[in-house]
Amino acid sequence: MLRSLSLARFLTRSSITTCNRFMSSDSQPLTLCTQENGIRRIVLNNPSKRNALSFALMESLKDNILRGVKEESLRVIIISANGPVFCSGHDLQELISKHRRSDHANIFHLCSDIMELVQDVPVPVVCEVGALATAAGCQLVASCDIAVASQHAKFCTPGVNIGLFCSTPAVALGRAVPRKLALDMLFTGKVIDAEDALAHGLVSRLVDHDKLHDEVMSIAEGICEKSRSVIAMGKASFYRQIVKDRNSAYQDASNIMVENLCLHDGQEGIKAFLNKTKPKWDHSLD
Amino acid sequence: MLRSLSLARFLTRSSITTCNRFMSSDSQPLTLCTQENGIRRIVLNNPSKRNALSFALMESLKDNILRGVKEESLRVIIISANGPVFCSGHDLQELISKHRRSDHANIFHLCSDIMELVQDVPVPVVCEVGALATAAGCQLVASCDIAVASQHAKFCTPGVNIGLFCSTPAVALGRAVPRKLALDMLFTGKVIDAEDALAHGLVSRLVDHDKLHDEVMSIAEGICEKSRSVIAMGKASFYRQIVKDRNSAYQDASNIMVENLCLHDGQEGIKAFLNKTKPKWDHSLD
Amino acid sequence: MLRSLSLARFLTRSSITTCNRFMSSDSQPLTLCTQENGIRRIVLNNPSKRNALSFALMESLKDNILRGVKEESLRVIIISANGPVFCSGHDLQELISKHRRSDHANIFHLCSDIMELVQDVPVPVVCEVGALATAAGCQLVASCDIAVASQHAKFCTPGVNIGLFCSTPAVALGRAVPRKLALDMLFTGKVIDAEDALAHGLVSRLVDHDKLHDEVMSIAEGICEKSRSVIAMGKASFYRQIVKDRNSAYQDASNIMVENLCLHDGQEGIKAFLNKTKPKWDHSLD
Repeated sequence: MLRSLSLARFLTRSSITTCNRFMSSDSQPLTLCTQENGIRRIVLNNPSKRNALSFALMESLKDNILRGVKEESLRVIIISANGPVFCSGHDLQELISKHRRSDHANIFHLCSDIMELVQDVPVPVVCEVGALATAAGCQLVASCDIAVASQHAKFCTPGVNIGLFCSTPAVALGRAVPRKLALDMLFTGKVIDAEDALAHGLVSRLVDHDKLHDEVMSIAEGICEKSRSVIAMGKASFYRQIVKDRNSAYQDASNIMVENLCLHDGQEGIKAFLNKTKPKWDHSLD
Repeated sequence: MLRSLSLARFLTRSSITTCNRFMSSDSQPLTLCTQENGIRRIVLNNPSKRNALSFALMESLKDNILRGVKEESLRVIIISANGPVFCSGHDLQELISKHRRSDHANIFHLCSDIMELVQDVPVPVVCEVGALATAAGCQLVASCDIAVASQHAKFCTPGVNIGLFCSTPAVALGRAVPRKLALDMLFTGKVIDAEDALAHGLVSRLVDHDKLHDEVMSIAEGICEKSRSVIAMGKASFYRQIVKDRNSAYQDASNIMVENLCLHDGQEGIKAFLNKTKPKWDHSLD
Repeated sequence: MLRSLSLARFLTRSSITTCNRFMSSDSQPLTLCTQENGIRRIVLNNPSKRNALSFALMESLKDNILRGVKEESLRVIIISANGPVFCSGHDLQELISKHRRSDHANIFHLCSDIMELVQDVPVPVVCEVGALATAAGCQLVASCDIAVASQHAKFCTPGVNIGLFCSTPAVALGRAVPRKLALDMLFTGKVIDAEDALAHGLVSRLVDHDKLHDEVMSIAEGICEKSRSVIAMGKASFYRQIVKDRNSAYQDASNIMVENLCLHDGQEGIKAFLNKTKPKWDHSLD
């Protein structure tokens, strides 16, 4: 099959999206996107605007996530950021004027789209956060499957301070951390540090800042050693079952286990383990 | 509009509910209620009965929460307690005799009513807890939007010890802390300290006992600096979306963001921020 | 009533299930089951197979859980394990071959059955875990009402490494710990230690290894001092309400409180407490 080959060629180590509508005012791409050995890295790249999620940046980010996402050559996505702020949330310039109701609706639809996509794409999305993430930036961290923070990371949802309650970030935040913490952050705008974020489930791991990149790469490389189809099946099952009542969840997940065992890779992995050999995945859904 | 003025006059710093049916046996009001600068403080005030949630005390508490709750002059509610016990739960004297089934039903209905109200009123409710909170007392802490504890705070749901399982407290507790902890507390009656309560999400913050009052006041004053209508919209959205599946939650919350931007205060806040001025909220839903 | 007497005789301290189909290859029972003073202890007993949840072991375990579970003489169930591994998950030998689809379905149905049973039986189930629990073994810990770990306990869901994503373990894991941790464990297979398990809600308590047995027995003995019917009512209510929206949960739980007060033991417990005497439970649902 040629499907993966064409993408691999397109998204090589040095590939960067340079579509004009995704350029910042200083003519830099709003996001950078490279892919190598199955690992796609998407970098928020508008530091002078604190990587605000402008409509254009969100379009660029969505494009980076979606492009060839079903291709076998893609195995994991990393989202990171350039500059001293991970992401400051929405671009406030786009939210002024009461009269642009439909524009505002488009902005929040696109943003929710991205947050849902991160969880719906068939590969794990790992967030690398070593700086402040606020409002929809915090939402992005909370939405990723795995998040690794350094001690420089900080998190807040301070929209209430500027008259725009972080109601959409609260969807992701409220599903990641205990309510008592979420509501404290939402009503007061208080900033939490990386240790509290780890303790309360907003991030998966906390490492020294100079080891942040390596830790994320190590997770990504580990994921690349596994079967793409097995991970895709498992990820979809997780988000599907977690909102169901327990018995329905088990019915769904039990069926998935049986399907998983019908995959080539399901049988290959178990046999390799029992024979103490290295599995040869075919990554297919057959 | 005169709506807020009349309430402000009624509930001044020194106002105390003195309705006779809300009196303790030693002729003290069962709850105290004062309001100043937008901050209403409700104090459980029956220390000799360990602030038990008798029917009369609950009626008084409900009245204190509801009175003029939609008035613009009210911006945040604090619930605290006098005496060495925050709250010991239901008044057991009212629960004896198998034959008063309808009375018992009324008691639990009223109690659930209050726990729901705390989350449904349009202003944040902050709990200040510096002592033991048991059973429905623990439920009250778990139900508040934000809870601040001192190291003197302790929590338990020991109804099982006296043959009355804490099933209603479990509704709030089970939504605040991990199930493994909730069930341990419910089956064994074990007491957890303030540190464990913080670690597991039962409270939002933990401070030195002598700073408890100041910390709560600081949160309350911070909330008063924000737009009432923005907070009301955000609070309602939070509790509405948190029980929905993710996509429905985003649909709801995205609509709320657009509505929020249509408010005067939504536009005012953003403009003030961009212009580096102080916002002038009108707190209205227009 | 003779119902409990016959069971008590059957399941005395020395009773062990010796049904042939539940024997390991070295002719040891796959699980041991003893009962004394209301405390049933079920021990996973196939250390040479790392207590793998083979179909036969699961049948034995289910039988041990269900047998006479409604009898008054049974008050609490402990699940523990012999050997250096608590439980390694499914027996992989039973999962090879793509063509045994219906066999695989039976395995996962039986496993889900057990995990649901643990939460649906009318007595608390306490897990004693002092060693590694992986995949469905981790699921078993996550499914118990209470889990006590020693510092030797470790947990992981590494199915992804062998091409079989831990989708059914994820049902229990995802309801016990924050999602960011669950997905990290599921996508990377990483092992977490007992401290992290405690911090994030996978276990209820962490004690020194040499105190593990005593701590679990102390919990079990404490449960035996309470009313069986009150605990049964409370446990069923907890799992029923926790998946409902808040108001429906309160409606259900409020009704249960009223029912609880109608029990002999509901009245007995409160009266004994008020009179400072020891309650005399009848453990009945009358």
